[in-house]
Amino acid sequence: MIIMKTDATQEQIAHVIKEIKRYGLRADVSKGAYRTVIGIIGDERKIPFDHFAALPGVKEARGIEIPYKLISREYSKFLEGEGERRAIKVGNIEIGGDEPVFIAGPCAVESKEQLLKIAEGVKKAGAHILRGGIFKPRSSVHSFQGLGAGGWEEAEAALDWLHEAGERFELLTITEVRGEAQVDLAAEYADILQIGTRNMYNQDLLTKVAGKNKPILFKRHFGAGVEEFLSFAEYIAAEGNKDIILCERGVLPVGKGKSYTRYILDLASIPAIQKETYLPIVVDPSHATGRRDLIFNMSCAAIAAGASGLMIEVHYNPTEALVDGQQMITPDELKDVIDACQRINKLVLPMRNKR
Amino acid sequence: MIIMKTDATQEQIAHVIKEIKRYGLRADVSKGAYRTVIGIIGDERKIPFDHFAALPGVKEARGIEIPYKLISREYSKFLEGEGERRAIKVGNIEIGGDEPVFIAGPCAVESKEQLLKIAEGVKKAGAHILRGGIFKPRSSVHSFQGLGAGGWEEAEAALDWLHEAGERFELLTITEVRGEAQVDLAAEYADILQIGTRNMYNQDLLTKVAGKNKPILFKRHFGAGVEEFLSFAEYIAAEGNKDIILCERGVLPVGKGKSYTRYILDLASIPAIQKETYLPIVVDPSHATGRRDLIFNMSCAAIAAGASGLMIEVHYNPTEALVDGQQMITPDELKDVIDACQRINKLVLPMRNKR
Amino acid sequence: MIIMKTDATQEQIAHVIKEIKRYGLRADVSKGAYRTVIGIIGDERKIPFDHFAALPGVKEARGIEIPYKLISREYSKFLEGEGERRAIKVGNIEIGGDEPVFIAGPCAVESKEQLLKIAEGVKKAGAHILRGGIFKPRSSVHSFQGLGAGGWEEAEAALDWLHEAGERFELLTITEVRGEAQVDLAAEYADILQIGTRNMYNQDLLTKVAGKNKPILFKRHFGAGVEEFLSFAEYIAAEGNKDIILCERGVLPVGKGKSYTRYILDLASIPAIQKETYLPIVVDPSHATGRRDLIFNMSCAAIAAGASGLMIEVHYNPTEALVDGQQMITPDELKDVIDACQRINKLVLPMRNKR
Amino acid sequence: MIIMKTDATQEQIAHVIKEIKRYGLRADVSKGAYRTVIGIIGDERKIPFDHFAALPGVKEARGIEIPYKLISREYSKFLEGEGERRAIKVGNIEIGGDEPVFIAGPCAVESKEQLLKIAEGVKKAGAHILRGGIFKPRSSVHSFQGLGAGGWEEAEAALDWLHEAGERFELLTITEVRGEAQVDLAAEYADILQIGTRNMYNQDLLTKVAGKNKPILFKRHFGAGVEEFLSFAEYIAAEGNKDIILCERGVLPVGKGKSYTRYILDLASIPAIQKETYLPIVVDPSHATGRRDLIFNMSCAAIAAGASGLMIEVHYNPTEALVDGQQMITPDELKDVIDACQRINKLVLPMRNKR
Repeated sequence: MIIMKTDATQEQIAHVIKEIKRYGLRADVSKGAYRTVIGIIGDERKIPFDHFAALPGVKEARGIEIPYKLISREYSKFLEGEGERRAIKVGNIEIGGDEPVFIAGPCAVESKEQLLKIAEGVKKAGAHILRGGIFKPRSSVHSFQGLGAGGWEEAEAALDWLHEAGERFELLTITEVRGEAQVDLAAEYADILQIGTRNMYNQDLLTKVAGKNKPILFKRHFGAGVEEFLSFAEYIAAEGNKDIILCERGVLPVGKGKSYTRYILDLASIPAIQKETYLPIVVDPSHATGRRDLIFNMSCAAIAAGASGLMIEVHYNPTEALVDGQQMITPDELKDVIDACQRINKLVLPMRNKR
Repeated sequence: MIIMKTDATQEQIAHVIKEIKRYGLRADVSKGAYRTVIGIIGDERKIPFDHFAALPGVKEARGIEIPYKLISREYSKFLEGEGERRAIKVGNIEIGGDEPVFIAGPCAVESKEQLLKIAEGVKKAGAHILRGGIFKPRSSVHSFQGLGAGGWEEAEAALDWLHEAGERFELLTITEVRGEAQVDLAAEYADILQIGTRNMYNQDLLTKVAGKNKPILFKRHFGAGVEEFLSFAEYIAAEGNKDIILCERGVLPVGKGKSYTRYILDLASIPAIQKETYLPIVVDPSHATGRRDLIFNMSCAAIAAGASGLMIEVHYNPTEALVDGQQMITPDELKDVIDACQRINKLVLPMRNKR
Repeated sequence: MIIMKTDATQEQIAHVIKEIKRYGLRADVSKGAYRTVIGIIGDERKIPFDHFAALPGVKEARGIEIPYKLISREYSKFLEGEGERRAIKVGNIEIGGDEPVFIAGPCAVESKEQLLKIAEGVKKAGAHILRGGIFKPRSSVHSFQGLGAGGWEEAEAALDWLHEAGERFELLTITEVRGEAQVDLAAEYADILQIGTRNMYNQDLLTKVAGKNKPILFKRHFGAGVEEFLSFAEYIAAEGNKDIILCERGVLPVGKGKSYTRYILDLASIPAIQKETYLPIVVDPSHATGRRDLIFNMSCAAIAAGASGLMIEVHYNPTEALVDGQQMITPDELKDVIDACQRINKLVLPMRNKR
Repeated sequence: MIIMKTDATQEQIAHVIKEIKRYGLRADVSKGAYRTVIGIIGDERKIPFDHFAALPGVKEARGIEIPYKLISREYSKFLEGEGERRAIKVGNIEIGGDEPVFIAGPCAVESKEQLLKIAEGVKKAGAHILRGGIFKPRSSVHSFQGLGAGGWEEAEAALDWLHEAGERFELLTITEVRGEAQVDLAAEYADILQIGTRNMYNQDLLTKVAGKNKPILFKRHFGAGVEEFLSFAEYIAAEGNKDIILCERGVLPVGKGKSYTRYILDLASIPAIQKETYLPIVVDPSHATGRRDLIFNMSCAAIAAGASGLMIEVHYNPTEALVDGQQMITPDELKDVIDACQRINKLVLPMRNKR
């Protein structure tokens, strides 16, 4: 990490970058409110920090030992003052600001009618972002894989419905990209691109998606610890894209016997992650619990734990959904969830800030 | 399960019990607001339910397939109406009622002075029950095992301090019993007996503690699923003691790399467990996270998830505690936690009841 | 599953396939020693099996409820007689036959000299297949990502060395493809393509690699159960490629405290998997244990458990390896391993067959 | 750890022990082939090692940082030379020597006839030790808990059958003690006492059992890491009883979906544990897999991995067993297992010693 002086010139910055390349490494240049900080991508042990500290315009040069340095608070504090979180602005929505953000919609897009009807419902309920899966990752090749499995034309049609639904109901849109070949197409239509839990470790996909310069909702793998989760988010940041919305969606259940929830929702990871990074983190209670009747409680709990928002599966008639009907709630139920969460947030926010 | 008619006589009930014994099984007799229900302890497959259904005073006789039938809602609904939870009354405190209950105190009792000073602090902060460990389960024989390790005299002295602190500051008291030999002594002094996480599977201890007819705080093992947790609570219920306070305290972390919390707090187990049993459930965020700086957020989240109370480690000076200092908070911080939790509970309770 | 009569004609088979397509599903056609069996890819519940049973040339038509039916023994027994395993032939090597197969080489290809020297060593030690990573999946973007990270030219050069080393020392070659963009290039040079543990769930990559019609070594994800592992292998089989070599490489450690092995090697999964599928399974003790000093014992154990081969990381000087030096053994140590394994296999094979 | 000089006198040793007590700690005195070593039980940080190093007869005084120092190789090497394992002698059997030891018998003792018939069978098959559960730990209070649940008389009768069967067929005997109250009685009848997986963390039981000065078979908890396993074995050693036979019996399964084995048998823990401690370790493939059809393979694998013996559930008619029938094998199958294991041991032992 090379911290530049507040009055460092463009030439001085360019010189530092050139020097980093000379050592076979890449540079991440972040311009903050106060100064420019240059991160080093690659093995820092190759860098003679003393040499860099002596370059013109450089205030300080030193290594960071954590594997997720570009998204760390250690890194951001030189840019924007210690303790600052960085909210991500998408359209007129701010993710990671004082208000929780609600992402809602069907698990899978099934038809234009279905999507529009759900979009209208979630908008009325108070949601900000419309979700809809077109390329569905499934644990069996014999299950419905989303409309995107029908070919590129069907995929584009479904993406177009998503875009149209977003326009009509003034909702931002998000959809998952499951494979590298889908990235370009999805990026044309959706406002936010989602990396699913099973792709958290897919570094080639991360790198490709990062390059589209769109915000990315990045889900934790269900078998990953927090350190791995952040280390793979770093693959996105290393491409210069720091508009990363982290998403906790549950980890593998423990123990023997029947599981009462699909996964274990790791809510303590939220404040723990907020101590490590300036990135916002949201929660997906639908996949975590797999149970409609637990969504209200776990949504309240997630916001009380400090989450910046929620991603919830919604269907006007959950029982007829092709995928995941047992975990979907109705737009009316979503309204209750949003109402409760906003009130909890209003209550805890000042208490949290006071501390 | 033998459901008696509302007008069944004592003789009819006694006859059913006699019949159950004749098949080599034990009977659990629960008298509810409406009627008496007789549970069968042991292998129900030996029971000819038709025979029992035909006995005088019997309304219905049938098996329950779950391994925790005596504590199930299936069982309680015939007693008290569907949907009822059963609050446990200890002194003038109700655990599982509309108000959250706060259990607080040091991890380990270290001296009379330490205990009285902390008791005074937690009382002022609004706690209801004083905790203090005398027989400490530890993962190394070379670590401090609590004052109880010094011999029975030292143990009794420490238990007496706990009792005195409770009296002086009008707090109920709770302490852990780690082995069978400690049960009688601890039951003389403490209002509630605690079974620790490592003893969840210790059925001989459960049976012995159950026999003291005191309320029992029963912690989930960190490697146990919900079904096992409830199945072992059933060992206590099978002794006729249903004053069981379940306690979620975190399960084993998943994944590779550094752990940011000691365990994973499984808050979704709270509403999931509440669908299964009428027993109250509380949360221990101190052991679950192992981090003082996460207690506020996770306490709020636990109450928002529907917990009936919290168990929190408190010390006036966490850095000088012999055990677990890194996860203790001060009485002042506890006051903030209790204040926030009570406000969240007031907010979510009516919304939850409405649903 | 449509089981054809032994004398079914090509026309009859083609007609069945056409009918399956009419229901919006895909067909997998397997010609066995005895007859042709046609598997259905997609949601079988859409299929009227009665209708298919009545088609000319059809012996039997019925569903299989497991999610990995195309690779199941249930499926193969109609082709080749119950109990048969299917060995995969690559060059003059048979994987899944009576003799264990040894795959060995460096974790990462570092230079032509390094690779040739190791290739010579492992050949002398008795290995059959040379491994060498060019596109390395790493948990940190700041670590060495393999020569492939240097660009397509560097990648091709390294692949060419691998091919040359294979030619020179009469070894088959295997390398990992980490992302979709690497598949075409790697398939030009390597005899076997590897899917790494972190990509087990990457269905788009599986589909793409399957299409190259080369044998695939498919590693179990470290957080995956056996059912998921086989269900994702089915994604490869559904593309018509059944030359799948399964690979057990360890699952996530359990419990608290220091880990003495990197992962837990799940050797019981080997005979368990062999009851489910006709595919061969090999073991990677290097990544599973992460410890050079455990390779000998765990290699012996894997073969004793019934594995069809081993994949072992080898370096002439482990301490100078850029990646994973602590788990590599020398060619001399490999010779001991191969010797012991062959003798154990000779001992247990007839006893196993007898049973 | 205080290492005495080879010519240290009894007085000098007694003086060191007295000094340790003066610091409020306990002493473990081990007399080896070469010298006496005195271990410190409790928090070593209280000890001024310089002071101890200067005492007469003391060669060296220093701390060991691992939590299982009394059973560590670090400790034993001063006693018996580096690399030595310590075999435990019970009757004329040696556990941890060059020959594998076979423990076999029913899961639960059901009747005298059943036990004698099985004892005869396992003796003929080549087993050395007869197992039979009388106090059965069960996950449901409604399941059969062993004959010991019928009262102390029934328990004593069953223990007597075990003893008689051992006498008659020249087998040593082992039975599990599940609670503290059972220790005295079981110790009167059985040659070896077993601590089950669910009691690994039950330190009060460990301490009580240790005091009987009988060999103890100590099972790893299914949710415990190796460090915890050894740290709890240390509770036994700290009572002066080092005749501890460790037993690996499988850890919690990972991942989603159907489990194909009851637990995951962690065979790599065997050589890993052997690097840490001089204690012998055996394997229980019956509980680990829960599948009769995997016992042969996993027994072979365990011995190939270096285990000192096996504990296998055997019944002449597995389908009529009251508990765990699906994982039991017949005496004939046991004979095959023992035969294969002895031949594998003969093969790998010299190769392992050579290395």
